[in-house]
Amino acid sequence: MVLPFDILEYHERLTNTKKRMAAQGIDVLLITDPANMNYLSGYDAWSFYVHQMLVVIIDEPQPLWIGRYQDANGARVTTWIYDENVIAYPDYYVQSEQHHPMDFISDILRQIGHGNRTVGVEMDHYYFTGKALEQLKKGLPNSTFKDATSLVNRVRLIKSDQEIEYMKKAAKIADLAMTKGVESIRPGVRECDTAAEIYYHMVRGTPEFGGEYPAIVPLLPTGDRTSIPHLTWTDRPFIEGNPLIIELAGCYKRYHVPLARTVSIGQPGDKLSFLAPVVLEGIQKVLEKAKPGVTCGELEETWRNSIKKYGFEKEARLGYSVGLNYPPDWGEHTASIRKGDRTVLQPNMTFHLIPALWFDTDGIEISETFRVTDSGSERFTTYPQELIIRDHLEYGGQIG
Amino acid sequence: MVLPFDILEYHERLTNTKKRMAAQGIDVLLITDPANMNYLSGYDAWSFYVHQMLVVIIDEPQPLWIGRYQDANGARVTTWIYDENVIAYPDYYVQSEQHHPMDFISDILRQIGHGNRTVGVEMDHYYFTGKALEQLKKGLPNSTFKDATSLVNRVRLIKSDQEIEYMKKAAKIADLAMTKGVESIRPGVRECDTAAEIYYHMVRGTPEFGGEYPAIVPLLPTGDRTSIPHLTWTDRPFIEGNPLIIELAGCYKRYHVPLARTVSIGQPGDKLSFLAPVVLEGIQKVLEKAKPGVTCGELEETWRNSIKKYGFEKEARLGYSVGLNYPPDWGEHTASIRKGDRTVLQPNMTFHLIPALWFDTDGIEISETFRVTDSGSERFTTYPQELIIRDHLEYGGQIG
Repeated sequence: MVLPFDILEYHERLTNTKKRMAAQGIDVLLITDPANMNYLSGYDAWSFYVHQMLVVIIDEPQPLWIGRYQDANGARVTTWIYDENVIAYPDYYVQSEQHHPMDFISDILRQIGHGNRTVGVEMDHYYFTGKALEQLKKGLPNSTFKDATSLVNRVRLIKSDQEIEYMKKAAKIADLAMTKGVESIRPGVRECDTAAEIYYHMVRGTPEFGGEYPAIVPLLPTGDRTSIPHLTWTDRPFIEGNPLIIELAGCYKRYHVPLARTVSIGQPGDKLSFLAPVVLEGIQKVLEKAKPGVTCGELEETWRNSIKKYGFEKEARLGYSVGLNYPPDWGEHTASIRKGDRTVLQPNMTFHLIPALWFDTDGIEISETFRVTDSGSERFTTYPQELIIRDHLEYGGQIG
Repeated sequence: MVLPFDILEYHERLTNTKKRMAAQGIDVLLITDPANMNYLSGYDAWSFYVHQMLVVIIDEPQPLWIGRYQDANGARVTTWIYDENVIAYPDYYVQSEQHHPMDFISDILRQIGHGNRTVGVEMDHYYFTGKALEQLKKGLPNSTFKDATSLVNRVRLIKSDQEIEYMKKAAKIADLAMTKGVESIRPGVRECDTAAEIYYHMVRGTPEFGGEYPAIVPLLPTGDRTSIPHLTWTDRPFIEGNPLIIELAGCYKRYHVPLARTVSIGQPGDKLSFLAPVVLEGIQKVLEKAKPGVTCGELEETWRNSIKKYGFEKEARLGYSVGLNYPPDWGEHTASIRKGDRTVLQPNMTFHLIPALWFDTDGIEISETFRVTDSGSERFTTYPQELIIRDHLEYGGQIG
């Protein structure tokens, strides 16, 4: 089995995690976020639909993996953890009203002498439920609990060179999937046909390397649904004169590079024609502003001033830190490009800049994923940064 | 906007939910499971990566939808709920350390006079975090909290005829995706190429109706990884003589029909040749046993006795109730086909029967999704129920 990173890189990640644990007074960190589990151990499987965790103990050299019996072989195969640190609970704990996996896990922690320590839990992560919290508190009555939401996520903020290499591969896949998706669009083709084309290339990747499933499915709102960012495709056909938005990501070794474009089927209406240069100018200014030492809040200010002169303001954040992830989100839940965010940019931070504008019955999304370099920023993808127009010349007069 | 179900069907679902609420003494039910939100309201968007909920109040005719501002248009477009019952929180609540959406939601509930009632929460569902529970308890200090895990899921156990129709369409997609996926397999083709083929057909669907994203990605363990059910594809090429497992689902209107098959590239080894008829005989016996009045536990007993005579036993459950869902799981988290499960089969219950056997370095999965009929059971898919053998006759001698 070949791990995606050198063992020393995993050790460094673990050391950085333990430094943060020490600073917060946490002895035992229970990691339930699948991206954080992967980041520290390499663990990679679609098993996060049952309770599982990685346990980092501040004075132990290796984490423990605790999960379902049928997934334990996966932990042995995809991680650098020794087999004796892989602990499995029996299947009768799965989705049962009588037995809860956190009871099993509490028993283990008590048995190995960690029943009275300070325990960090990822309080606001998807796969750490209210019930999980309650059962742990019952099972570890002598432990003190601390909120460790995003503790590991913050270690993930600055990428290593190897992580950046994987994101560059993900970017190639994003460019390919966007190219093929856009090429498939013409009146009469169904949204699901274009989504299928995107998925095919996203998963197949290039002849040199394959793609993986992204943490969010391709989003494809069309017509007046372009006002609603998180709708997925339907099986309705595209109509001449309609706009649509494609938001997708290339994914390689679970690292994501998202990319969004707005497409006009036929010539765009006046509003979209007016909006596109406004958004493009704002993106350009933000990318020029981005460099080490600048804060995320200052990037938002740059954007705000750029669009204000055209009479626009934006309610939602402009972007977020991006990289390694699992469904349901490719964002890292740390830095956001929004008003007041004090995160200071440093080299090899990576962001998805998606300064979308949505109105009652329409919207525009043009995005770029960028890396902070030593002196500025650079985009990951090469797809043209513009409003995409699909006209009859491009689809060769074919309908459907 | 056309809802996937008649408004009367949504009303009936709501009435059945309120009956269960009354029986458990719950006045206000906070529904955070996206499948349950969809089931009661029609809401369908990839927005469950931020906090959102449907609030069912026992003495109010309509639920409230509460979510992120940019998703509110989606609630207006995809649900039967009146616009005034769609309530949005500002974007600064999203993934913030200063503001939590549950504080906003508590404020709303207090303001509209429900600050001192008995509140049901889906304690053990993915998108209800430990932090969400704590914030709600802080924000509603005069409320009594009850665990309503799977309350709505249990309403979902018996499908309507319309739901069965959607599952039949999902089954057509599952058959198509499996056919095309298997046809793509030959030595030299990469796992990601076959996964891409499966995804293409899963999403494109048929010329009559399109497909949707399934709640679990296609699983494709190959070679000795067939011992590990939840590994996804890699970009390694298939090798003559290796087995692989494909587990996928067709999805239509968010309803799933899963289907798993084991494939041998070239002639199967002795062990796989021996295992296949054992598993097929067990499946046959379970499907013959399944009819109204029989319990899930009795189905497990039938399976256990069938394989015991060949010297096998199975650690994990054999199957589970299946239907409407969102990532990360297509199972409904109610009835499981396992020892001691007392769920009594009734017409239009639907199950994924997946009596897989896994060993140290290999495994076999052949599954069927079935419906309980008035007098027995029937499969949804038509794909041949057998060990699939891809030999040089089928791939025409082509390599790669």
